Amino acid sequence: MAPLTPDFDEEIDRFGTHSSKWDMMQPLYGVPAEDGLAMWVADMDFRPPACVQAAVQRMADHGLYGYYGDDTGYRDAIRWWMQERHGWAVERDWIFSTHGLVNGTALCVDAFTRPGDAVVLMTPVYHAFARVIRASGREVHECRLALKDNRYTMDFEAWDAQMTGAETMLVLCSPHNPGGRVWTREELQGVADFAKRHDLILVSDEIHHDLVMPGQNHTAMALVDDSIADRLVMMSATTKTFNLAGTHIGNVIIADPNLRARFAARMAGLGLSPNSFGLFMAEAAYSPEGAAWVDALVAYLDGNRRLFDDGVNAIPGLASMPLQATYLSWVDFSGTGMERAEFTHRVEQGARIAVNHGPTFGSGGEDFLRFNIATPRARVAEAVKRLQEAFGDLQ
Amino acid sequence: MAPLTPDFDEEIDRFGTHSSKWDMMQPLYGVPAEDGLAMWVADMDFRPPACVQAAVQRMADHGLYGYYGDDTGYRDAIRWWMQERHGWAVERDWIFSTHGLVNGTALCVDAFTRPGDAVVLMTPVYHAFARVIRASGREVHECRLALKDNRYTMDFEAWDAQMTGAETMLVLCSPHNPGGRVWTREELQGVADFAKRHDLILVSDEIHHDLVMPGQNHTAMALVDDSIADRLVMMSATTKTFNLAGTHIGNVIIADPNLRARFAARMAGLGLSPNSFGLFMAEAAYSPEGAAWVDALVAYLDGNRRLFDDGVNAIPGLASMPLQATYLSWVDFSGTGMERAEFTHRVEQGARIAVNHGPTFGSGGEDFLRFNIATPRARVAEAVKRLQEAFGDLQ
Repeated sequence: MAPLTPDFDEEIDRFGTHSSKWDMMQPLYGVPAEDGLAMWVADMDFRPPACVQAAVQRMADHGLYGYYGDDTGYRDAIRWWMQERHGWAVERDWIFSTHGLVNGTALCVDAFTRPGDAVVLMTPVYHAFARVIRASGREVHECRLALKDNRYTMDFEAWDAQMTGAETMLVLCSPHNPGGRVWTREELQGVADFAKRHDLILVSDEIHHDLVMPGQNHTAMALVDDSIADRLVMMSATTKTFNLAGTHIGNVIIADPNLRARFAARMAGLGLSPNSFGLFMAEAAYSPEGAAWVDALVAYLDGNRRLFDDGVNAIPGLASMPLQATYLSWVDFSGTGMERAEFTHRVEQGARIAVNHGPTFGSGGEDFLRFNIATPRARVAEAVKRLQEAFGDLQ
Repeated sequence: MAPLTPDFDEEIDRFGTHSSKWDMMQPLYGVPAEDGLAMWVADMDFRPPACVQAAVQRMADHGLYGYYGDDTGYRDAIRWWMQERHGWAVERDWIFSTHGLVNGTALCVDAFTRPGDAVVLMTPVYHAFARVIRASGREVHECRLALKDNRYTMDFEAWDAQMTGAETMLVLCSPHNPGGRVWTREELQGVADFAKRHDLILVSDEIHHDLVMPGQNHTAMALVDDSIADRLVMMSATTKTFNLAGTHIGNVIIADPNLRARFAARMAGLGLSPNSFGLFMAEAAYSPEGAAWVDALVAYLDGNRRLFDDGVNAIPGLASMPLQATYLSWVDFSGTGMERAEFTHRVEQGARIAVNHGPTFGSGGEDFLRFNIATPRARVAEAVKRLQEAFGDLQ
């Protein structure tokens, strides 16, 4: 069980626990289990807060896992969190519980677009978006983020010129995965204007909205511009903030009654309702104790980020994008002049680190690898040391 | 935690645990929480086997709930169960994990039919089938079961005459909920022939296949007739057998490669993958220890069934359908000559028992109420006593 004061330095052995990140590292990447470092799949190597652990233990002690009734407390916990942490007043009936946000994104595509429609993604971006869009028989329309001074910015002028008229939805990732950007209010206003200008449903994936570095301020899309309320869907989840990916539960929040009715119809038609573990654990997480844990977590991640960036940026030719949010470091290897196969080989086989490959995030990701730094600091230090060795000839 | 020898007599207080069955009894039925008996929602008032409880405790002790990797062991546990308990050899890649079987049914409707198609149900039957069919924009085509000597039989001749040509799927409930029938091999062959004759996809919901009373033999639809393999989908789950409804996980098993590809495409397009609690607990349940627990459970349910039937059938005008399977007693009140409102009022307000209403199961259910007898025997005895009092004027 987790202690009341989180110990993010504890190195917990996750091998043999059906951990995708650790147990699949050797089969998928060939990175040896003996001393490999798993820095790919986006979950954390930390236990969730004690209040969540206590909720699981209460379930185990009661020992009955039947049909769950009355989700009022669960919805109110979500509302409390959105008001307290994000200044956003949410009504109970705006909230849908999907099976995580890959499912949430897919349900938006299913409910609000038609086969053959195009969905806009600002690439590079979280790879599962394109996967579900294509698997639904829709097209991906890539709007490429501009890379300036080692950070991403939006280029609405260029994007306006690329629109074909087939686009009916935009999936925004805010804060941005993998770039780590916290979009400014002005940038988000630009997104709102863009969505209106091209008559797009705007799905705002804010799953990383709690993992925002000190000094940065995330703005909920719903607070940016009232005039987009009739086209806006917001997504968030306890799974990322509290490291509960296995619970497969996510919030899809829709203020507009018309969009809500269409989404509800698809949920009903697909017979979807949430599992009770996700409900119990989310309600426990969205609490004052959960909030204190997140504050401690973010401070720890900020320390990891500094250590990682300092170490990686000391290697000539490597540039880690400054993380304003998320625990996913996006490292540009183009300065090495190496082919992708070469720098990837050095990281995976030389440094023995499993990472996400840039091209899976769409156009613009070709020169990058994504490193998950939500792990005890000693492992981040070890990763830095190995990378410096693997690219030692560049010193 | 559950002891190694199950104690089905233990009366566990489920109030205040988000139990739909108990906590929603008063708000939905007006049956008082103080001394009401919850005999509606189809979960059991028993803890699952110790092997399942141990799996939950192991998860809690480890305390990390990240992305789940490698479901080989889970699939092999399902395969072992189907071979060992049902004599059916299943391949690993035939198995899909849906979010329970309401979702499983809905995905079949979504994958294999088109809006406006009709789906055949043999009514009265599990109410959620009609709900998801209609919510998907498909029609329900009711084929009414014949009621003879207090049991249901199939009437293919009548059904053949009623077909319109719009029907593209049949959802079979085998064993039958709410009638408790274990269909014979001859009846199932009739279903297979009917499906072929009318070119229907045959979805065989076998969720109750483990809860079969002593002396009865359930036959897996897949074993009945090889020539329907190209139109057959089988559904089963740990949720019903082991009382794990909250885990929201179900097996959809498809041998035919073409149907499988179409189903897989919808799962991918909807971004669906199972939660880790369901995976861990299902793997633990489908085991020799789980099998021994099921044997003990069925013996206990058989005792409950006898007690309930004897008591109810002693009331003039009431007839409980003989349960060959399931823990859901289907009681015919037509012999009382009362209006539905009257007998329902006597059960809910007089006997203070929350039950499922017959008409929600479709045509043929009008005179019935469904009683869930998967509860400690003392409660079944109390229910019988109260019913005898509530209908005492008929003695």
